[in-house]
Amino acid sequence: MAYELHYWDGLQGRGEFVRLALEDAGERYMDVARGKPKAGYGTEGMMRVLNSTTEPHIPFAPPFLKDGELIVPHVANILLYLGPKLNLAPKDEDLRYVAHGLQLTIADFVAEVHDTHHPLATDLYYEDQKDAAKIRTQSFLEKRVPKFMSYFERVLKQNPHGDKQMIGDTTTYVDLSIFQIVDGLHYAFPRAMKKFGAQYPRVAAIHDAVLKRPKIAAYVDSDRRIPFNESGIFRHYPELDQDA
Amino acid sequence: MAYELHYWDGLQGRGEFVRLALEDAGERYMDVARGKPKAGYGTEGMMRVLNSTTEPHIPFAPPFLKDGELIVPHVANILLYLGPKLNLAPKDEDLRYVAHGLQLTIADFVAEVHDTHHPLATDLYYEDQKDAAKIRTQSFLEKRVPKFMSYFERVLKQNPHGDKQMIGDTTTYVDLSIFQIVDGLHYAFPRAMKKFGAQYPRVAAIHDAVLKRPKIAAYVDSDRRIPFNESGIFRHYPELDQDA
Repeated sequence: MAYELHYWDGLQGRGEFVRLALEDAGERYMDVARGKPKAGYGTEGMMRVLNSTTEPHIPFAPPFLKDGELIVPHVANILLYLGPKLNLAPKDEDLRYVAHGLQLTIADFVAEVHDTHHPLATDLYYEDQKDAAKIRTQSFLEKRVPKFMSYFERVLKQNPHGDKQMIGDTTTYVDLSIFQIVDGLHYAFPRAMKKFGAQYPRVAAIHDAVLKRPKIAAYVDSDRRIPFNESGIFRHYPELDQDA
Repeated sequence: MAYELHYWDGLQGRGEFVRLALEDAGERYMDVARGKPKAGYGTEGMMRVLNSTTEPHIPFAPPFLKDGELIVPHVANILLYLGPKLNLAPKDEDLRYVAHGLQLTIADFVAEVHDTHHPLATDLYYEDQKDAAKIRTQSFLEKRVPKFMSYFERVLKQNPHGDKQMIGDTTTYVDLSIFQIVDGLHYAFPRAMKKFGAQYPRVAAIHDAVLKRPKIAAYVDSDRRIPFNESGIFRHYPELDQDA
C-alpha cells in the first residue's frame, strides 16, 4: 500500500519537506488532501483522521504520514521514519540521531520563518500585525539567518566525509531539506539573499546539487510541485525584505 | 560512563525535560554547566563542545546529551534516544514514533510559551517588547493553550489502554513532560490556570500522578531542581497573566 501524506492543499508548507524525500526516492505516495473527495481523499479525507474520535493515536496537526494503521506526525519524525526505508538516512544507527538533530534544527528555523509574518498571533491576519512583522523580520534577517546558516556552514566544514553532504558520505533527507529552506529564502527575501552564495558557499552548493538530482529536477518542473505562495511558510512580502 | 547533560546553568528551561527523565529513572548523570570548571565542567565545559572546530557533529544549541563520543541535540531527540534505555518509552517500535510525535508537539508548545515573552526578537529584552508580548500572550492563553490542552485531553481519552498515561499502558517520558508544562503554566499564569483542573481533568491528573512518583517527588524537593525563574521558558510576569 502506498504511503499517505496528509497535508493542507494549495501550499508547499511543511508538507514539502516530506514530498521532497518521497519524490527523490521515486516512492509512490498519495497526497491525500489533493486527491478526489469521491475516492475518500481531499481535505475532508484528512480532516476525518484529524477529527477522529476512535483513532488510537491522533495527530495534533498536518503534516502526518499514514503507513497502514500507523500515523506518524511532525516533519522530522516522518523523515526519521521514512529515511531508512527511502535510503535517505545514514546507515549507522548513531548517526541517525545526528541527522534527526539537524532536521530538528531545520524545523526550528522553519518555525522562525513562519513567525516573521505572524509574530503576534497565528489567528490574526498578516495585515493586522505588519508593524510587528517588520521588527521581527529585521531581527530574523540580521541575526537569526546568519546564526543558522553559519551553523550549517560549520556542519558541512566539519563533516569528516567532506562538505558535499550534511552528514556522512551520502545524500540524506537533511540535504533535501537544506535545499528547501534555501529555495524558500530566495523566494521570500530576494534582496536579502543577493550575497547568499558568497556568504555561505557550502550551503548554497548543497541547494544547487540537490536541484540537479534527476528526480528532484523532474519534480520541481512538474505540476506536483506547488509554486511558493503567500499561504505557505515562505511568503514574499516586499515590505519585509531588505538589502543584504 | 555517566551521561553528560549540557544545558545553561541557573534555569530549568528545555534541559528540565531531560532532567526529569534521568531523575525518574534514577540514572547517574553529569549536569555539565553546573559542575566545577576546575574539573573541566561549568559553562565553559559546555561552550568548549559548542564552539569546537574539530567535533564531527556539533549541536546548534543546548540542551544536548553526550554519551561517550555521540552528541544528541534537541530535547525530543534526547528523549527518543534515552527513553528505551531508561525504561521510559513504549516497548513497541511503532509506538515510539507516536510517543516522539507527542513530544514534538510538546516542543512546539514550549516554543510558543517562550514567544509569549519574546514575540519580536530573542535578542531584545522583554521590557522592549512588552506591548507585543501582551497581545501574543492573550492569543496564547485564549486560543493556543485550549487548542493544545484539548488535544492532550483527547489523546488521553482515546488511549486504548486508558487515560492514566499519554501512550500505551506504562508511564513514559511524555507523561513527565506533560507534568513539566502544566507545572510551568501554573507558575507563569496562576490566574489563567485557576480552572485548569476542571477544564482538563485528565491532563491535570497526569501532572499530579507524576508528582507522586517517589523519585520525582524527591527530585522536586532537592536542590538539583532549580526553581522556576524569569530566565527560563515559563516566566511569571503578572502583567501578562489574565483571569481564566
